[in-house]
Amino acid sequence: MGKPDKAKIIFQPSGRRGEIQKGMTIIEASRELGVDIEALCGGKKVCGKCKVCIEEGFFEKYGITSSRSHASGWQKEEEEFINAQQRDTGYRLGCCAKVEGDLLIFVPEESRAGKQIVSKAARDIHIEWNPAVKHYYVEIAEPSFEDPTADLERVVAQLNREYGLKNLDIDIPTLRRLPTCLRESKWKVTVAVWMDREIICVLPGKVDDYYGMAVDVGTTTVAAYFCNLATMEVVDTVSMMNPQCKYGEDVMSRITFHMMHQDGLFKMSDDIIGCLNSLVAQACEATHPPSKDHENEDKERKEAANKLKDKQYLCLSPSDIIDMTIVGNTAMHHILLKLNPVYVGVSPFPPVIHKSMDIKARNLGVLIHESAYIHVLPNEAGFVGADNVGVLIAEEPYKKDEIQLIIDIGTNGELVLGNKDKLISSSCATGPALEGAQLTFGMRAAPGAIERIKIDPENNEVDYKVIGRDAWRSYSKPEEMRTKGICGSGILDLFAELYYSGVILKSGRFYPEQKSNRFRKNAENNQPEFVIAWAHETTIGKDIVITQKDIRQIQLAKGALYCGCKLMMRRMGIDKVDKVKIAGAFGTHVDRKRALIMGLFPDCEIDKIISVGNAAGDGARAALLNRKKREEANWVSRNVEYIELTVEKDFQQQFMEAMQIPHMKDQFVHLKGIVPDEILNQ
Amino acid sequence: MGKPDKAKIIFQPSGRRGEIQKGMTIIEASRELGVDIEALCGGKKVCGKCKVCIEEGFFEKYGITSSRSHASGWQKEEEEFINAQQRDTGYRLGCCAKVEGDLLIFVPEESRAGKQIVSKAARDIHIEWNPAVKHYYVEIAEPSFEDPTADLERVVAQLNREYGLKNLDIDIPTLRRLPTCLRESKWKVTVAVWMDREIICVLPGKVDDYYGMAVDVGTTTVAAYFCNLATMEVVDTVSMMNPQCKYGEDVMSRITFHMMHQDGLFKMSDDIIGCLNSLVAQACEATHPPSKDHENEDKERKEAANKLKDKQYLCLSPSDIIDMTIVGNTAMHHILLKLNPVYVGVSPFPPVIHKSMDIKARNLGVLIHESAYIHVLPNEAGFVGADNVGVLIAEEPYKKDEIQLIIDIGTNGELVLGNKDKLISSSCATGPALEGAQLTFGMRAAPGAIERIKIDPENNEVDYKVIGRDAWRSYSKPEEMRTKGICGSGILDLFAELYYSGVILKSGRFYPEQKSNRFRKNAENNQPEFVIAWAHETTIGKDIVITQKDIRQIQLAKGALYCGCKLMMRRMGIDKVDKVKIAGAFGTHVDRKRALIMGLFPDCEIDKIISVGNAAGDGARAALLNRKKREEANWVSRNVEYIELTVEKDFQQQFMEAMQIPHMKDQFVHLKGIVPDEILNQ
Repeated sequence: MGKPDKAKIIFQPSGRRGEIQKGMTIIEASRELGVDIEALCGGKKVCGKCKVCIEEGFFEKYGITSSRSHASGWQKEEEEFINAQQRDTGYRLGCCAKVEGDLLIFVPEESRAGKQIVSKAARDIHIEWNPAVKHYYVEIAEPSFEDPTADLERVVAQLNREYGLKNLDIDIPTLRRLPTCLRESKWKVTVAVWMDREIICVLPGKVDDYYGMAVDVGTTTVAAYFCNLATMEVVDTVSMMNPQCKYGEDVMSRITFHMMHQDGLFKMSDDIIGCLNSLVAQACEATHPPSKDHENEDKERKEAANKLKDKQYLCLSPSDIIDMTIVGNTAMHHILLKLNPVYVGVSPFPPVIHKSMDIKARNLGVLIHESAYIHVLPNEAGFVGADNVGVLIAEEPYKKDEIQLIIDIGTNGELVLGNKDKLISSSCATGPALEGAQLTFGMRAAPGAIERIKIDPENNEVDYKVIGRDAWRSYSKPEEMRTKGICGSGILDLFAELYYSGVILKSGRFYPEQKSNRFRKNAENNQPEFVIAWAHETTIGKDIVITQKDIRQIQLAKGALYCGCKLMMRRMGIDKVDKVKIAGAFGTHVDRKRALIMGLFPDCEIDKIISVGNAAGDGARAALLNRKKREEANWVSRNVEYIELTVEKDFQQQFMEAMQIPHMKDQFVHLKGIVPDEILNQ
Repeated sequence: MGKPDKAKIIFQPSGRRGEIQKGMTIIEASRELGVDIEALCGGKKVCGKCKVCIEEGFFEKYGITSSRSHASGWQKEEEEFINAQQRDTGYRLGCCAKVEGDLLIFVPEESRAGKQIVSKAARDIHIEWNPAVKHYYVEIAEPSFEDPTADLERVVAQLNREYGLKNLDIDIPTLRRLPTCLRESKWKVTVAVWMDREIICVLPGKVDDYYGMAVDVGTTTVAAYFCNLATMEVVDTVSMMNPQCKYGEDVMSRITFHMMHQDGLFKMSDDIIGCLNSLVAQACEATHPPSKDHENEDKERKEAANKLKDKQYLCLSPSDIIDMTIVGNTAMHHILLKLNPVYVGVSPFPPVIHKSMDIKARNLGVLIHESAYIHVLPNEAGFVGADNVGVLIAEEPYKKDEIQLIIDIGTNGELVLGNKDKLISSSCATGPALEGAQLTFGMRAAPGAIERIKIDPENNEVDYKVIGRDAWRSYSKPEEMRTKGICGSGILDLFAELYYSGVILKSGRFYPEQKSNRFRKNAENNQPEFVIAWAHETTIGKDIVITQKDIRQIQLAKGALYCGCKLMMRRMGIDKVDKVKIAGAFGTHVDRKRALIMGLFPDCEIDKIISVGNAAGDGARAALLNRKKREEANWVSRNVEYIELTVEKDFQQQFMEAMQIPHMKDQFVHLKGIVPDEILNQ
């Protein structure tokens, strides 16, 4: 397969792939394919920033059978940056290793130049202060011959007298520190109590501020809110890619990885736990002043320092994090906890557990305070997991009269429909297409990604904007655009614009009579495609196009979503909803009008479509700051009725129909006046 | 110090020491000093049974400064039995290594020929069946599209329906096994639930029998009852020396070791946890048929096999142990849990914690069932710890009208006095003399130890009996006795007989006009001593004597005990008790008449003095088999008033007086007619 002088390259975790000329360095290949690898020294082999890992083991899937021999030999310069152990696991410098055959290359987080822009900032939602962990300050009488009661019982008695706390337990590592802490602090201590049940930390003197972390483990992105539990302030928001991406992009491929590899579950679990530890370390590091030695190199620290410029440095360490809440879909939940995820992927899709769990962080290997608990929110059913429960306790549709349709679009789509009388949920396999993955020129939301697109209905000329540059194409010189691909919000724009401007039909097929030379047949495979950006506007040296196959991928995703919504409405016996809420990073970028044009979800008044951002993460934060939200989560997880869509009797037909744009049988009353009648009535 | 051709040797854990001729092998030295090391091949260097460890680090204490260079060079034959790692830690074969200088030698349990006889068999006490862990069998409906509820919730719902169990949690390792176990067993499982709160094990099918262990961590001996939790049967009783003995014989020396060594607490804790794991392994091994390969060598397994001859082998493994209870004095309790034991040794002696603790075995490093809890019983005060609480819940003096004096004699003496109206407790530093340690020829209860002694009042001739031989000295040839030393029960006999026969006076001093040539002055130090066994009756080649210093040691111990009892009676405002109960291994061997003669405790009717055996261990067993006993233990630990004896105003004077035999100011009415008046009125 492939031409003799070409090699097939896949870069992970971005998934960018293509054939490149043999003999190129990995850095050069990465530029060719629009993957940004850090290379401060410009390939002089002296900065060591372009470390990559040539991955093993996964090649059958891609039809590649061997890896190491497909890269050029080890160079002396690499020794300074790559130790023997790393070398054994496949690490190379991207500027040294040349491509000599097919390769699967993993670009570690620290080597990625275009840091991903994750829009998972904390929203300002109302949360009542009632955290699971609370601080209590007590002054205790020293033991005497008259009262030689034990250290713990003295503390517990005082907590009872002053705060009415009863029957307190204590975690053994905390008990080990108690006698010394009491004596060194002259018997004046602050006691951290978990759920009014267990003493998990004793600190000398009076300590007001204490910290926790709320984590949203997404299939693709893991985002965490670092919160002050005393003030409820969000100290920082940190995020990174889910390292499990290297095993597959969606939940089913992760489950498959577990089934095919004896240690697959443990590997993936350890990866996500390592990721949690990295986020904790990252959040803590940002509370320290930047070290002067690395001032020039270490951009990230500098940024963090700027963020905190006018503040005192908190100088926190992981052991200052005394509570953590986690949400994630059922597969992410199960993999994190090393629970067998197989059955959740097989009909009738039962999870291993619904209810929330409180697990000592140390028993999971999460390196926060030694005695801290991790509260993992409950699962609903099937793949509708703790993340959706997070969305629900953040949005509280069960407290409203109006009927809400809540759509959480990630790699997996999760839907909730209802109000205070009834709530139903389901999941649909949207796949990652709406996020820009798996398309010919799809990419993540990083600098150089097309995020907005307009197509002129008259001449089908394209105008667009890339992340990292304010000026649109029409106000720039071509070479200023430095375009690399199309990200999620660009996809949505593109799709709506293609339809609106008549480039594609309701069916998704290209209109046979095109107005522009942007439409053409691919020279190699003779498939129709439409050019978004010409080669000279890009850094990758070739035209960025959307193909018929790409359009099908997007149609499948939007069809799954739309069909899910409609089937749920049928179940509820309604034909319209009062409000559509779009959660997830996707939602924050979505153009409501275009989403309607595209037929992403059923018709609704445009100003009743609102984005609620990372509502799953907000739910995790609510549960971190208010213990009552944990109870609410358990209640709602058992009171949402789960609908398995794929067994609805006419699912296939509904799905096929839903792939139309917007939907052929629907009355999209709210599109009247927005989309020209001739297009709507095509 | 010492003669140039002699070397000072100390054998641990027995503590036997002496000067021996340089050039002897360690095996020969051990025989010289009455320490039995296994040597099946008779020194031919082929059986490898005589492994010993030449210990490091502890030599200052004994005035020995270097170790390794004091043994002869490594021999080729040793390689077959001692691996490189063991060699590095100082292991040698006793038949190969020759003494070339002062040495501290540790004889591992498996190399000890004369296995210690620990009389800590389980008594037949009444316990109601109500263990903390219970088995429940359930048959569960498979998930379906109509009911796709999660695995755990299915099990929990069934347990609620059938057994009324509510709000069950589950431990995460058990949850990890749940999905597979349910499906492999066709949804018929036995669920082990801890305290009606937490699912800790799920087994396929119906399982009736399940197991637990009740452990008494003594300062010197650790004994464990291996129990069937379904039938309450004691499957086996196992015991071994507390490996912490190498750091010192009593609790104060252990605390001192912690204070002097940064990692002292961790070392001692790890030792006792290793010991628990050994006991678990030992108990489980005995439930397997003996392996044929080792039939000749492996005596222990054979014995175990004989024990079970008529039974089916249970073939249990450590993971079959699903619950454990532990008692121990406060120092042993604190060291086990790695709690700082310093303050419990310093006035006003507050422990770190009183209340009982439930700790996951895995968090302590105890290798039983992964999800099992260890229940550590509560402490009273000072050194009166969970072991005494064990005695109390076994004996239940708080349910009786009669006033009981309960004496638990171990390395530390613990006293409880009272009835249902009031209970007081205290501890007294008896030291290990009453157990035979620290005396010139004291030894543990092992074959060759003198356990019974009679001295003829007429001519002061001595008759005695050794462990392992039924015939007394007077019915044996001298060389048949093979005597090695005197153990605890022998000491008590000896002391009473020395007084009764007039060899010593009330004051403890030797009577100046002795009737026998057994009384003499030591040739080297000119101190008076009395010969118990002549050299030709022993295997150690020298006369076994008791010295004036030995007698003082015993007096100190008995004085501490007696004085403690009297001070407590004064506090209670009573001058007699209704019953004296003697707990501990010591109690099972004590001759009540002789204990009274000796003045070990205040006067009492002889048939009201009873031995209650290892009551502390019985208490641990009661708490293992009946959860209500755990509540009772917490209640009683907070309702016994602790008396610190050493701060009683005339403690010193009382103590001095109590060293007399029996007690100079007491009316020992119950000795009338037992001890001749002329001796009683001396």
